[in-house]
Amino acid sequence: MIKKWALFLTALCCTVTAGAQVYKDAGASIDARVKDLLSRMTLEEKVAQMSMSSLKGSLNNPLGYGVCESPFVTINEIAAQSIAAKKYAREKTRLGIPPIQIGECLHGQLASGATIFPQAIALGSTWNPAIVKQMASVVAYEASSSGVDQALSPLFDLIRDPRFGRVEECYAEDPYLVSRLGTAFVTGMQGDAAQSINGIAKDKLMCTAKHFAAYSIPVAGINLAPASVGERELRSMFLPPFRDAVQQANIYSVMPAYNEIDGVPAHASNFLLKQVLRREWGFKGYVFSDYEGLKMLYTFHHIAAGPGDAAIRGLQAGVDLEAPSPDTYDKLADLVKAGRVKEADIDSAVARILTVKFKAGLFEKLLPDTARLKDRVHTPQHIALAQTIAEESVILLKNEKQLLPLNIGRLKSLAVIGPNANQVQYGDYSSTRDSRSGTTVLNGIKQLAGDRIKISYAKGCALSGNDKSGFAEAVKAAQNSDAIVVVLGTTSVVFSGIGWNGHTPEGEPKDPFTCGEGYDVTDINPDGVQRELLRAVYKTGKPVILVLVHGRPWSIGWEKENIPAIIEAWYPGEKGGSAIANILFGKVNPSGRLNVSIPQSVGHIPVFYNHVNSNKGFYHNPGTPEKPGQDYVFSSTGVLYPFGFGLSYTTFAYSNMQVSAPVFSKDERVTVSVDVTNSGKIAGKEVVQMYLGNKVNSVTTPVILLKGFEKISLEPGETKNVKFIIKPGDVAIWNLDMKEVTEPGIFDVMIARSAEDVVLKKTLAYK
Amino acid sequence: MIKKWALFLTALCCTVTAGAQVYKDAGASIDARVKDLLSRMTLEEKVAQMSMSSLKGSLNNPLGYGVCESPFVTINEIAAQSIAAKKYAREKTRLGIPPIQIGECLHGQLASGATIFPQAIALGSTWNPAIVKQMASVVAYEASSSGVDQALSPLFDLIRDPRFGRVEECYAEDPYLVSRLGTAFVTGMQGDAAQSINGIAKDKLMCTAKHFAAYSIPVAGINLAPASVGERELRSMFLPPFRDAVQQANIYSVMPAYNEIDGVPAHASNFLLKQVLRREWGFKGYVFSDYEGLKMLYTFHHIAAGPGDAAIRGLQAGVDLEAPSPDTYDKLADLVKAGRVKEADIDSAVARILTVKFKAGLFEKLLPDTARLKDRVHTPQHIALAQTIAEESVILLKNEKQLLPLNIGRLKSLAVIGPNANQVQYGDYSSTRDSRSGTTVLNGIKQLAGDRIKISYAKGCALSGNDKSGFAEAVKAAQNSDAIVVVLGTTSVVFSGIGWNGHTPEGEPKDPFTCGEGYDVTDINPDGVQRELLRAVYKTGKPVILVLVHGRPWSIGWEKENIPAIIEAWYPGEKGGSAIANILFGKVNPSGRLNVSIPQSVGHIPVFYNHVNSNKGFYHNPGTPEKPGQDYVFSSTGVLYPFGFGLSYTTFAYSNMQVSAPVFSKDERVTVSVDVTNSGKIAGKEVVQMYLGNKVNSVTTPVILLKGFEKISLEPGETKNVKFIIKPGDVAIWNLDMKEVTEPGIFDVMIARSAEDVVLKKTLAYK
Repeated sequence: MIKKWALFLTALCCTVTAGAQVYKDAGASIDARVKDLLSRMTLEEKVAQMSMSSLKGSLNNPLGYGVCESPFVTINEIAAQSIAAKKYAREKTRLGIPPIQIGECLHGQLASGATIFPQAIALGSTWNPAIVKQMASVVAYEASSSGVDQALSPLFDLIRDPRFGRVEECYAEDPYLVSRLGTAFVTGMQGDAAQSINGIAKDKLMCTAKHFAAYSIPVAGINLAPASVGERELRSMFLPPFRDAVQQANIYSVMPAYNEIDGVPAHASNFLLKQVLRREWGFKGYVFSDYEGLKMLYTFHHIAAGPGDAAIRGLQAGVDLEAPSPDTYDKLADLVKAGRVKEADIDSAVARILTVKFKAGLFEKLLPDTARLKDRVHTPQHIALAQTIAEESVILLKNEKQLLPLNIGRLKSLAVIGPNANQVQYGDYSSTRDSRSGTTVLNGIKQLAGDRIKISYAKGCALSGNDKSGFAEAVKAAQNSDAIVVVLGTTSVVFSGIGWNGHTPEGEPKDPFTCGEGYDVTDINPDGVQRELLRAVYKTGKPVILVLVHGRPWSIGWEKENIPAIIEAWYPGEKGGSAIANILFGKVNPSGRLNVSIPQSVGHIPVFYNHVNSNKGFYHNPGTPEKPGQDYVFSSTGVLYPFGFGLSYTTFAYSNMQVSAPVFSKDERVTVSVDVTNSGKIAGKEVVQMYLGNKVNSVTTPVILLKGFEKISLEPGETKNVKFIIKPGDVAIWNLDMKEVTEPGIFDVMIARSAEDVVLKKTLAYK
Repeated sequence: MIKKWALFLTALCCTVTAGAQVYKDAGASIDARVKDLLSRMTLEEKVAQMSMSSLKGSLNNPLGYGVCESPFVTINEIAAQSIAAKKYAREKTRLGIPPIQIGECLHGQLASGATIFPQAIALGSTWNPAIVKQMASVVAYEASSSGVDQALSPLFDLIRDPRFGRVEECYAEDPYLVSRLGTAFVTGMQGDAAQSINGIAKDKLMCTAKHFAAYSIPVAGINLAPASVGERELRSMFLPPFRDAVQQANIYSVMPAYNEIDGVPAHASNFLLKQVLRREWGFKGYVFSDYEGLKMLYTFHHIAAGPGDAAIRGLQAGVDLEAPSPDTYDKLADLVKAGRVKEADIDSAVARILTVKFKAGLFEKLLPDTARLKDRVHTPQHIALAQTIAEESVILLKNEKQLLPLNIGRLKSLAVIGPNANQVQYGDYSSTRDSRSGTTVLNGIKQLAGDRIKISYAKGCALSGNDKSGFAEAVKAAQNSDAIVVVLGTTSVVFSGIGWNGHTPEGEPKDPFTCGEGYDVTDINPDGVQRELLRAVYKTGKPVILVLVHGRPWSIGWEKENIPAIIEAWYPGEKGGSAIANILFGKVNPSGRLNVSIPQSVGHIPVFYNHVNSNKGFYHNPGTPEKPGQDYVFSSTGVLYPFGFGLSYTTFAYSNMQVSAPVFSKDERVTVSVDVTNSGKIAGKEVVQMYLGNKVNSVTTPVILLKGFEKISLEPGETKNVKFIIKPGDVAIWNLDMKEVTEPGIFDVMIARSAEDVVLKKTLAYK
């Protein structure tokens, strides 16, 4: 009882002594506003700022919340809840601190009614940062319409183990490509990188870099499992994209990963959250726990005896805010009173959260204008952009005897077959699997071909399971057609499943999830009887085009051997069907490139192009295999399709590679240029790739590393000169003292079509 | 020219000034002998001590060699070469320093004529350190007969990835089991542990701990590839067996691994070879490079520009001796003269090598007595021991309806089928694959059953390849028999292939190698058409007993489901066929236990029992799976057969578990005891296992960890009390500061039949 009285008096005291409300003065400095506001807050109000609630749930807590989550409902309902919650915070809480409204925005706002863009893995295969930036800007525009202030996006994790179901949420296997696309996303969403940490413009959102760090290499591919990785590999491969998110894109928030690295869960890692993130990188934003990440410290990782211990571990490591509810941070006030936590540590965390709120202008921000929602969300322009991105993302893996593009004039009939032929797959972190929210491949083809081609459709089989009862119909459709498009793939978990446009979910498919968060696998061959369906159709002798619509790389050795044309489409978003149709019929020339190496089998995992020489010594010296010693008994260590690979309907020639200097030193830059010519007969886009290879260093380094790329458009016969800049940091390593240095030496500069197709090569020295 | 003269004068000077030869005085202290000898040596003679040659090759180098390798020939020839080489060293080199004669002794001397014991992976499944010690003692006795001074054995690596071909050379997946068996091997071979570092008795050998460290977890299972592992996991899992080799078994030599850890190859790792091995553990022996391990620093790892750089990296890291020839250390003398290497560093390395030579008594050792070779090698007693060990190693995995043991009286006919049925597989690091050096399963059965059972044999198929032409004969044999024994498996690389007893290799099988060093795989299902052969035989409806003779765990899901009796025999040595026959017919009650978890498939890798909770949170709480989140879509995270598992022809009951104190503190010990009763009708051996589980620590720790076991023999109805001691170090962890500490807390003490079959459990607190 005495304690309660004391609390009450403290609160009263604060209220009574409140002077001029500096924190409400938009003209005051942010430091002054934070200081003023913090001085007015009770311990309980501070702790409330370190916690999260749903928008609705925040309505009954007069202490307020640090952040509120947008529900997974329609955009109109989100907007309505946003208005209620923010009004409540401003008017019904003592200090009127607005919550940060967060929303998932991985490839579109996770809300019914928003535009669904291609999944992150498909954004990765565009190799087009500009278009990803444009998309992020549109997503920010849409999501801000219903009050969202911060996106829990994007991922800066690397695709390294296709068993892991969340690889679809990642951009690529390579840190440079991930960094380029991820920072493009952040600047598109937050606004101009140079200023974004100091202010969020209208229609823009704060971003969250996740999952920090090495979340995507769980042991045995299973979600939440530890990452086995040393500090040097961590710093060389897995941390750089996050560093760029902080230092180049000025990201507002960072989310620690669920997993542990070498015995220390990220949510309790001083090394990651304090030493690296804040001290080394100078991160000024706030650290946002992953959902239940702090709770897991005692329920899952067993490094805390209970919620109080977990709260202490999290706070001391540098987690500022707990999501999705105060499971452990609700103990903080008591822990302060018991002397187990310093209030100064609470103040630091709250100051970081408040700083962000002031910087992002939340105290002055207008509430959503529900009347304008319809004009701002899912507009024809946004839908068109979704299609353009899909068209840039689709990868042509094989095109024997130029089977593609299909010729509408010559083709009389076409069979469209397979479990994903007439089903849109939006991917994880979408609001729906209902095809009415998008265009299926079948419908895309029908819309394009009109009545000019006879189209037969047969599903053939489901995405999983052993039922072959649909094979006969599929084979019949194939036999009666001039060509066959077979669309296979996976289907991923959706978070709401509330159905298309907020309708009841009657249109939601019932297929069991086979990919996405928590959907990990032990085999990466096509699921169920899909390959058998493909074989049955292939046996008709008709030309077969395989289209893969899925969230993880598959080992398609048989397909590579036998099927004449293969298209990798990942999850291409709501207009994926139209994009694929345009590519099939040559309305669009494919320009996607592999953002991930395609492994021969699950037994070859992990497979990635940027390995050190001793991973497979002969890999880049195919003439000199060391066997026995570094090859498999019944297989090879090679990949089915390499990183960076992708075909076009035209051809490109490379010439005139120039390196501006043979030697460079500290603070110097070297320009690499090359002429690229469209040597074919139609316009097309090429992804010009520059790789560097360190010859000798004091520690081992990758054989080759992507350090530049540019996607260019070329008319037939046109030549463009493409330039890349090499800085000393591009060949830096983490030396034996774990310092980042560039060592004197010689390295290769390579212009390439893919990681395994180096076209031109020169040597450069650093002194 | 001037330089050469200077050298000549130096050498002359040394010779002229030589005083009383203290180093030749066996009565002088070792330090004094080393100091004296070193003072007499030219730089070139010192460098020669840091290099290796073959015994024959050493005959033309008057500078001598540090070590000489026994050739892979007959024991008589080795002895002859040994005598010549050692005489040459004593008489023809200036200072008469004897070389250390090394030999491979993994499971018997690698020499034609020596006894071939079960492969290391089979020694691991004995769970019997005493018998491993006895074997090592016998191997030392045999190998010393032909002059061997030091064994390049044993391995202290953990079995973690069955794709890796060298898992057969390892004892187990668990550090405690590896340590117990490895140190037993070393004390058996070197002699009494407490004294061995200070002297090698007659008939004993020095040992080499390899491969230091984490060699057995190469990325993607491919030999020589990097180990991805953090320092804490390295120190907790992979280093402890090596530490025990140094500190408990006083091993003479340590061999760095070929692989790199986090960018640093072991041969250039100051961390491993200086900080951990010498400073932290106090290792007093010498570091022996793996073959070409130093050369690889420039040819493979690319951390050195050439041999000179590689020599510097190796020397500075602490590699004392280069094998198999001076590829880089031949540059040392020039590097000293060029001022790039300090002669003091050379002196330190040479002093370590000389110290070992004096300690091991090489200067006083008698030359091999060729007349006694026949009486000392491959004696009936040694052969009998090979069989006893095999009998202890064989694991009964399944025995539905007590199909086994087979009853000679009731059984009229038996088919013995399969590619390893009439082929002895000795395993890697054997001199031969010729079955005349041992007993095949077929012959073992024939010798046991005599004429009492009609035996039909059919090979059925080869170990690899797709040829099914032998199936019909096998099925026919099966149809005409009361029961069927099918022997499947692998065949491993042999080093010499000189054939049985030194004969020409006409009896060597031609089968392509499928396991062993450099023979890694991407799938762990039975190779070739072996499973199809098994299925064909199974379809006859006759009772089938599957016997696996191979070097790596196979995923035998189908077999577990369908075949009524399964025996895991690994590579059981030259008398394996007799051992298996004795078990099949109940002459011996099986007592082997799994030393490795059997994975469901290659896509489940890595699979090991001693994982932290977040590897698979529900694993040890089968009632509460977290799904989705931590299970596979089309599979589970469980194993086919768990670590520690193995059946017997009798049953064992556990009772009366006692823990001597509920709480213990620093320097205190707790005794755990349990009564084990043979509750069946025949005598048998049980492996009583004690596991500990830390509940909460500051870093994550394994759910359970083996910390005690004892193999006991029990007559029917007999009860024995088994005691285990728990020390604070048994629950120590590597904390956030990377210090080894025991933290206060509560942990589980478990008595178990396997890692997944805990029989009795109590709680213990550390304060």
